[in-house]
Amino acid sequence: MAERAVCVVGTGLIGGSLLRAANKAGRTVWGVSASATTAEQARADGFDVTPDLDAALRRVADADALLVLAVPLPAVPDVLGRVDAVAPTCRLTDAVSVKVPVGKAVARHARRARYVGGHPMAGTADSGWAAGTAELFADAAWMIAADDRLDLDVWRDVAELAWACGARVVPAATADHDRAVARVSHLPHVLAAVLAATGAGDADDDLALALAASSFADGTRVAGTRPELVIAMLEGNRDALLVAVDDALARLTAARIMLATTGRPERPVRAGHVARLRWASRREPVGHRVRLDGPAALAALRKIGRRGDIVTGWMP
Amino acid sequence: MAERAVCVVGTGLIGGSLLRAANKAGRTVWGVSASATTAEQARADGFDVTPDLDAALRRVADADALLVLAVPLPAVPDVLGRVDAVAPTCRLTDAVSVKVPVGKAVARHARRARYVGGHPMAGTADSGWAAGTAELFADAAWMIAADDRLDLDVWRDVAELAWACGARVVPAATADHDRAVARVSHLPHVLAAVLAATGAGDADDDLALALAASSFADGTRVAGTRPELVIAMLEGNRDALLVAVDDALARLTAARIMLATTGRPERPVRAGHVARLRWASRREPVGHRVRLDGPAALAALRKIGRRGDIVTGWMP
Repeated sequence: MAERAVCVVGTGLIGGSLLRAANKAGRTVWGVSASATTAEQARADGFDVTPDLDAALRRVADADALLVLAVPLPAVPDVLGRVDAVAPTCRLTDAVSVKVPVGKAVARHARRARYVGGHPMAGTADSGWAAGTAELFADAAWMIAADDRLDLDVWRDVAELAWACGARVVPAATADHDRAVARVSHLPHVLAAVLAATGAGDADDDLALALAASSFADGTRVAGTRPELVIAMLEGNRDALLVAVDDALARLTAARIMLATTGRPERPVRAGHVARLRWASRREPVGHRVRLDGPAALAALRKIGRRGDIVTGWMP
Repeated sequence: MAERAVCVVGTGLIGGSLLRAANKAGRTVWGVSASATTAEQARADGFDVTPDLDAALRRVADADALLVLAVPLPAVPDVLGRVDAVAPTCRLTDAVSVKVPVGKAVARHARRARYVGGHPMAGTADSGWAAGTAELFADAAWMIAADDRLDLDVWRDVAELAWACGARVVPAATADHDRAVARVSHLPHVLAAVLAATGAGDADDDLALALAASSFADGTRVAGTRPELVIAMLEGNRDALLVAVDDALARLTAARIMLATTGRPERPVRAGHVARLRWASRREPVGHRVRLDGPAALAALRKIGRRGDIVTGWMP
């Protein structure tokens, strides 16, 4: 059986990298860019990209392809409206950084689609077609939604696409995913902005910036991302992010009090060190082969994700 | 005239790198490690390192060498006591990350020394002799204290050592330096610890760590540093750090409120982005040749630092 064809809507950093990676893996893949200029640029680079969404969706329906939405969250409902009109029952996933709002949008705008949410956890501070690379997803986590009643056949399609791109498959319930990325993906953007602004200080005194070294450079790297993208991303996960920000505020306040009273912020520094070591120890996750059938399959997948483990293949 | 010999007390990441860099630049250089094991390891690597502080200090006095203290702040007073006993009027600088407390310690324990404070802004999350490299200071900022009544002859020695190590010379008043590094060097450690602990969350759920990507990895990198080193560093700059932490708390609270009320943390994200671009624009600082004489020299140097510029040589 030939591997499933893929259509990617959106050709920014993530969508553009996905096109390249799927193409490199030998998949039949085509893309859609809302910008005729970008589509032309991608075609000049040798990729099958069109500004005509409906034409691309007709091809999805004809080829029984996997459709991947890689547009920012605010653009999702309009694209879903066209999906419902042109390829209503297609195999559908996405690469948006929050899952609950996309799930709701699918339920509202394209409820017949065979949707399984996804989120490849890769990125750089750059954006746009030109920033993409076929290697962006190498060893990156690729979350695939493991909620009850999802389509296991499409789950398999998404996992196989993730593996083809070199990524690690991490299963999670959508709500668990959104809470987790609020802490490890969205909060870092908020703290990077706070650190950058605090560090830079007054506009008429550049001494601090002249003295800034790698701790400042690393801690503020993602503040270099286009603000529109960051704001849309944070907005899309507001509720979970508020909980994460409140947690960070409580910890920062505790560090402040300990510094003021004892002079030594002992406990917060040690807690951060232990947490960083815990993260490092998860860099070589345990792999599991799973059986994708029966009512217990999705619960078993969620358990793997909560352990910090990954899915590496199917049980025969 | 032969270039001035250098003695480095402390052979951790900074001192060990300084020994290697000065050696590579052709300087006569010897070092002191409180640990006989480390001294032996450094000698096995071909460097002139002894555990005998007094012997090294006698050599400093005999050779009119520049003495560099590269020990953690808590170890500074004891070393200064030996300096006062063995090489009381030597040329003295340091590589400690705060300057006001070191200045006070010199005034108390080695007041006859010709002291000019310094701070090479380089580091990695690793520590110890084995982590050092001759290239650690390449293009790094090296702050040299520019307070009134400092010894201009020693100022020149420190600048020439910094250049020999490939660093950029940034002059600053000691109090200005301590305020600046609180914001760009010490605050990043506090926020990295907060981000790591918030991101890792509960010990029985590793999903967030499995999904953590480069924004989390970069934002928490310095939380990998040995906690003892971080705590001593933060403790040494408590007053300035409290101001920086309060500034960060205010900004984080403002972001929290904006996220809760409007759903879009527009202003903090944009402020962070502008600050990061300002930092990036300072990566190619303007260089100045200066004349190191007369009462106005040090004020002129401070002005260069406040502009974010650097000193690149002497005016003939």
